[in-house]
Parts: sequence; structure tokens; C-alpha cells
Amino acid sequence: MISTLRTTLQRPMHVLSRISNLRETKSFHCSGTLLKESKVWSLGKINHIALVTPNLDKSTALYRDVLGGKVSNKQPLPEHGVTTVFVELGDTKIELLHPLGEKSPIQSFLDKNKSGGMHHICIEVDDIYKAMEDLKDKNIRLLNQEAKIGAHGKPVVFLHPKDCDGVLVELEQA
Amino acid sequence: MISTLRTTLQRPMHVLSRISNLRETKSFHCSGTLLKESKVWSLGKINHIALVTPNLDKSTALYRDVLGGKVSNKQPLPEHGVTTVFVELGDTKIELLHPLGEKSPIQSFLDKNKSGGMHHICIEVDDIYKAMEDLKDKNIRLLNQEAKIGAHGKPVVFLHPKDCDGVLVELEQA
Repeated sequence: MISTLRTTLQRPMHVLSRISNLRETKSFHCSGTLLKESKVWSLGKINHIALVTPNLDKSTALYRDVLGGKVSNKQPLPEHGVTTVFVELGDTKIELLHPLGEKSPIQSFLDKNKSGGMHHICIEVDDIYKAMEDLKDKNIRLLNQEAKIGAHGKPVVFLHPKDCDGVLVELEQA
Repeated sequence: MISTLRTTLQRPMHVLSRISNLRETKSFHCSGTLLKESKVWSLGKINHIALVTPNLDKSTALYRDVLGGKVSNKQPLPEHGVTTVFVELGDTKIELLHPLGEKSPIQSFLDKNKSGGMHHICIEVDDIYKAMEDLKDKNIRLLNQEAKIGAHGKPVVFLHPKDCDGVLVELEQA
């Protein structure tokens, strides 16, 4: 830490200025001075687009039989309160979601959108912990304060739709 | 045509049955008999996910400065009644849309969703004309009866959300 700080302080101003433009910073104190140590995280590809459906079998048939997509088996995820089916499309997927159990987190969405609809987009990030820290610094509200394990067994975080122009955005560790 | 018909008629029933399961068929008449000639079209990758935003500059800044995505310049498309910005994410894109002009097709969406939201998904197909014919046969309503030229200069068609589980689906010629 001390050697990093010394190195940072020795850098000329234009380098510090460039560093301060990087998207992730971490604060630390030394000798009463608050400094910023820059770190980087980056967005990757869209992992999936999640659609909530009132009838998972009917939606699966639409994407498989009518549109001719490659669909997965139905996967119940009781710990997430959903049953999922994935449609593979290039290097991303459509995730069909239907509520499972009495406290499903998508039930209220389906109550408001009885025909179903687009629920969220999931974008991969190379370092979800740095991303979360950085986004909190930038006043983007996180719906879960700690990364939780998502449907693919990887850490995920959801960003508040009000901070993302009405869209629920999930970030997933690549 | 005649030789194709002869070949088709010479095929044993189980082959004809398999052919009739293919996803696209075209009818033709010969000697008063209506036959089906099978053809195939297929889904490709997701081309983009379209989000409507009440403030294009603010949304562009979110994806560029806060999330660190690679964004395009703002592109006004008066013939489509929208201004667009694309965010590149892997081999797909987010398309940020804002109404342009007085008769923008996305104005009513924005009136209902004042904070913005997810508007449609666009999936590529290898033959949009075969896809349209096939989907009409399968009672999927098309919002435009003829393929029209989309924002990327390629033929597109929109499928009725009521036939796609509440989701507006655009198909675009790959």
C-alpha cells in the first residue's frame, strides 16, 4: 500500500489525470490524506435477455417450433423462485422465466404484465466486485448489496431500474 | 418446377412426412393439385435489444461513462421517427431509442413508460421473406405485411407482441 502510494504520488499530473479518468477507483487513507487508487473493470457481452411468460410451455414451443430456435430443458430453480428455459441465439441467450413457488420475485411483474414481457438484460463484467464498488461510488443503486449467486452459478448484482433509464440491468461475473 | 414436382412425388411417404415437418413451406399448383414444397429458414443471433429512453444524452452517458461501454454517435433517422445510439456488447448491441418528430412510433411507449424501458428484441434470420411467409401460415401476425427497410438498411419485420408472449420481436435479414 505504502509503496503503491509513493509510486502514485511520484507520477506527473497528466498521468494522475489520466488515471482519474479510469472507471473504477478505490479510496484509501494515508497520513490523513484521502487519495484515489485507480482500478479498472469492464463490460463484456450480453449474457441473456430475460422474458417473463405466463405459460412456459407455450413460450418454449414458440421459440422452438414456430421460430426454430435451440431451446434447453426446463430448469426449476426453487432458490430463485423461477423456472427457466434458455433459447440459444449466437453468443447470447433469451432466458424464459416463469414464477416458481409462492414468493417468486417475478410474480409482481407477471401480475402487472399478464401477457408477459421483457424483464431484464444481463451483461457480463470481468470483475463484479470492482464493478459494484465503482457503481456505488457513482450513485447507482444496487438491488443486492452483496453479489449473490445467480442462475448460472456465478456472482450477479442487479442495478436499480430508476438509475438505468427504466431498465432492470443484471451484471454477471464473466 | 415440373422436375421438382416429379422428384417430390417419387419420394416415399416417410420422406414427405419428414419434409412437411420443416418450418417453411411454399404452396404451388400443378395439374389442379395443391402441393407443398418445403423450404427452410433459420434464426441467427440477437442483433440488438432496443431500449426507449426519455433522455438520449443521459442514457448514452450511463452506458459510456458509468458502465464503460463503447457507444456510437447519435444518429437521427427521420424516416423511422427515432434518434438512435448503439452500445456494442460482444456480437450484439443495445439500441438506445428516443422519439424524433411528431409522429414517432415510440412516442406512445414513452408516454406509458415515462422513465423509459425495454422496447423490443431484434433477431437475425437468414431469409426474411421465407420467414414471413412461414410465420403467416403459423398464424403469427406481422405488424408490417411487406418487409420494410430497418435502421441498418436491411429488410425487417415486426411480429405482434400478442403472438409472442407480450414481447415485440423484430426479425432482420442477416
